[in-house]
Order: sequence, then C-alpha cells, then structure tokens
Amino acid sequence: MADATNASLNTATVKAQWDLKQCVEGCVRHGFAGISPWRDVVQAAGVDEAARMIRGSGLEVTGLCRGGMFPASTPAGRQAALDDNRRAVDEAVAIGANCLVLVCGGLPAGSRDIADARAQIEDGIGQLLDYARPAGMPLAIEPLHPMYAADRACVNTMAHANDLCDRLGDGVGLAVDVYHVWWDPDLEAEIKRAGKKRILAFHVCDWLVPTRSLLTDRGMMGDGVIDIPMIRSWVEGAGYDGLYEVEIFSEENWWTRDADEVMRTVRDRIASAV
Amino acid sequence: MADATNASLNTATVKAQWDLKQCVEGCVRHGFAGISPWRDVVQAAGVDEAARMIRGSGLEVTGLCRGGMFPASTPAGRQAALDDNRRAVDEAVAIGANCLVLVCGGLPAGSRDIADARAQIEDGIGQLLDYARPAGMPLAIEPLHPMYAADRACVNTMAHANDLCDRLGDGVGLAVDVYHVWWDPDLEAEIKRAGKKRILAFHVCDWLVPTRSLLTDRGMMGDGVIDIPMIRSWVEGAGYDGLYEVEIFSEENWWTRDADEVMRTVRDRIASAV
Repeated sequence: MADATNASLNTATVKAQWDLKQCVEGCVRHGFAGISPWRDVVQAAGVDEAARMIRGSGLEVTGLCRGGMFPASTPAGRQAALDDNRRAVDEAVAIGANCLVLVCGGLPAGSRDIADARAQIEDGIGQLLDYARPAGMPLAIEPLHPMYAADRACVNTMAHANDLCDRLGDGVGLAVDVYHVWWDPDLEAEIKRAGKKRILAFHVCDWLVPTRSLLTDRGMMGDGVIDIPMIRSWVEGAGYDGLYEVEIFSEENWWTRDADEVMRTVRDRIASAV
Repeated sequence: MADATNASLNTATVKAQWDLKQCVEGCVRHGFAGISPWRDVVQAAGVDEAARMIRGSGLEVTGLCRGGMFPASTPAGRQAALDDNRRAVDEAVAIGANCLVLVCGGLPAGSRDIADARAQIEDGIGQLLDYARPAGMPLAIEPLHPMYAADRACVNTMAHANDLCDRLGDGVGLAVDVYHVWWDPDLEAEIKRAGKKRILAFHVCDWLVPTRSLLTDRGMMGDGVIDIPMIRSWVEGAGYDGLYEVEIFSEENWWTRDADEVMRTVRDRIASAV
C-alpha cells in the first residue's frame, strides 16, 4: 500500500498558498518523502538558501521544474533559451534534484511550422546535454498533452519522447505524467519501451469531467477518470521504483484551500487512488 | 486557388444564428458548394422537409453530424446507442449525405476503463456497419483531439482510426479535421495510409492561442497556428478531391456575429488560408 512516504510534492500544487520554506516544512510535517520545486519558487528563496533548506530537510528532490522552451523565432532567442536552460541545470545541481524536467516549448510567435519547432527542440536538448552530462544532471523530457502543442510543448506523446531519447543518447530520459498521457493507446507499450533507465519521474493528478480550463483545472487523484493504478502498475512494471510526484494546477479548487488540507488530501489519495 | 465553390458549411458554424432553411439559403447565396448539417438541425426542420430542402438546393452534403457515442455502462445503453445510430443512418440516407460522421464516444459515466470504451466503439461500429452497408451509407470515424478522450471520443489519432478501418473492412472510412489532428507527428504518414478511399471528409478551422474553452473556442482559418495548406496538401496528395467543410464552434466570437458576415469570412479564408 502506498502512503505519504511514496509522495513528492510538486510545489505548483500549493503555489497560491506556500513559498518554498513552507513547502519544505509542510512536506516534513505531513511525512512526504520528496519535493519538486519550480524554478520561480527556488529563485524567490535564493538558490543558495533554497539548496540549504532542501538539503537540510532530508527530502528527496524528484525534479526541478522546469527547463525547456527551446523554440524561438531568432538565433538570439534560441541562444537565450539555451543560456537559461544552463542556469536551470546549475540550479538543479544546487538543490540536488534527481533530474531537470523539460517542458520543451511550443511554436515560436507567428510560426505555424511545428516540424521546425520539433527540430529546434531536438537541437536544443542536444546542446544542453553537452552542459548537463558533465554536470551529472539528467534531463527529463516531459511529453505534454496535445492541447499544449501550440504554446507549451510540441513533444506530445511518449513515442516522440522515446524517439528523442533514442537519438540523443545518454543523459536524457523522460517524465511520465498521467495527466498528459493517459489517453494514449500506445501508452503501455511506450512505457515498456522507455524502461527503468529512462523513466526519471512519475507525476500524478487526475483528469476532471468537465475540464473548465486547459491549464488550471487539474483534479486530485481519484476525482477524475484516469486509471492511475493501472498506469502506475505499468511504470513500476518497467522498473520505476521512485516516488509519486503530485502536481495539481487548480485555480478554482485546490489553490483556494488551506494548504495543510491539500497535503492531507494528497496523503489520503496516494493511499486510495494511486 | 480555392474559393467558395470548394466550401461546405457545417451548420454548427452558425448554430447560434441560423436554422436549416437559413443555412441552405445562405450556402446558395454565398456560393458554397456544400453543406453538412447536424442531426438536431435536421430534426428541428423535420427529416422529410430537410431532405426536400437540401436536395432541392443542389448542395452537396459532405456529411451528417453525427452518429457515434457508442460506449455505455449497460447493455440497454449500448442497444439504445445502436438504435439511435441506425436512425442516424436513415437520416443520412434521406438527405443524401456522403457519409455519416461518427464521434465515437468517451468513457461511460463512472468508468475509468478507456480500453473497454475503445472495445465498445469497435463493436458498435461493427454492428452499425451491418445496417449501414446495405443502406449504402459510408461511416466516417472522426478522430477527436485527445482533450475529448474522456467525454466525447476516445478515438484520438489517425493511427487508431486507420487501425479500426483495417479491422472493420468495407463501408467505413474517416474524417480528417485539422483541429483534432494537427499536432500529431504521424499525421502525414497516417493520411497517406488512409488514402483516397478512406478519407471521406476534410474539416477545417483553426487552433487559437490562447484557447479559452476546450469545446467552443475554435478559430476561423488563418486566425490560429495550424498549417492548414500543408495538411490540405497531404490530404489531396493522398487523393482526396472533395470539399473543405468548415466547422467552427465559437461561443464568444463567430456565434455572436451576423451569419452573413461569417459566411463572407469563411469564403475569403477558404481562398487565403486553406
């Protein structure tokens, strides 16, 4: 039976309520085993102070969210993205993250060329690997739901992420987030194909019916239609033995509640619905 | 150069403004070559009267929207869906439609078993074919965007639709709607795989950034990020030589405008952005 000792808090889940210090203390207080902060939260605390807090807590850092956003309409824009990604690698190293999660980016402003955006993503990850490999920081490509292809990430399937990993070699894997991939008829096969080595993170939340916003209406595990235990069984069947990272964007519900209530609910649902 | 003589009006595009009679007259007035009505619009006019109006107009009927919605939680529910689909075939025959478009259905209430829903869809189409084949009415599986997997259709890729066609045999093809499939890295290959025989309809609109509603914020061709001419070139490269059906759900924009303005805009955009 899973419980809070299997849980990692993605700080976005309580982004409206808690800063990094509160998140770290909340994870310890509620018996979570891990944390996965967003960069803005880390930067708000100061990277050195964030690293001190997190390392002092004993929490496992299941990822830093997020690098990526590679495509740009100009060479200068692409260089700026690469520079920022290198800083993200430094921050991930500083806080001792298991991986830097990559939300790879959508179409540059004014572009309709998704094939070009995808080529830029592959180039960008390739260049970032030259920096991340010597730093010992694994990169985790997170395939995002196809509804984000235009503006957030045009890597939208596990198959595409696996193809990228095949071509890019060591130092890059992927993050499986049930919200993004639950609908994919090839999911089980592509999780198997990814295998233990490539699955660097496993994120959970739920798909609500109806979904009122493309971005900020994710559900708590058990409140939606995703068969999370099935997907978890596939991921663990492939060899993944890490934590379950809970990442819920929920403008109208969970972000409006007392954060300790959110943490208690996560803890309960990790046991009953994951 | 495409123009209005390549256009078919899906009546949903002006559903807030026009009934069937106004749609038929509007198509003729604006020089559209075709129409594709929804069942509720046909039924509101009465099927016999709808058939008389449409046949008298000389418009090509690029489809009847829609059959499908096969999965249900009980045998009685599945039987009711099948019965309703048979009536949809009768209506499609009555109005002389090229095909009955199938929005295949999502998860039955309370279910998280997407594999089962997909199996029910395959069974349902198979049973419906026994009725549609003798009636001479082709069924067009429309893969819907993965964001509709839970509640509208869990056939979400061209590959899945092609697989179904492979297994189900004659009498079933597919509808390519750019809104649903533009993000798919396998799109070009799966359009080729479908080929002339299977591509029964081609629907156009655009993906807006940002998209404010999952259901009713589609864009006019040219206002979004889809490379429609590219996808059109693939579809026509595969042999499709039919009309371009314009289907735009737009609660806050196009549904609020004068319908003749919408028709003029569609006509212009068919020429400039398709």
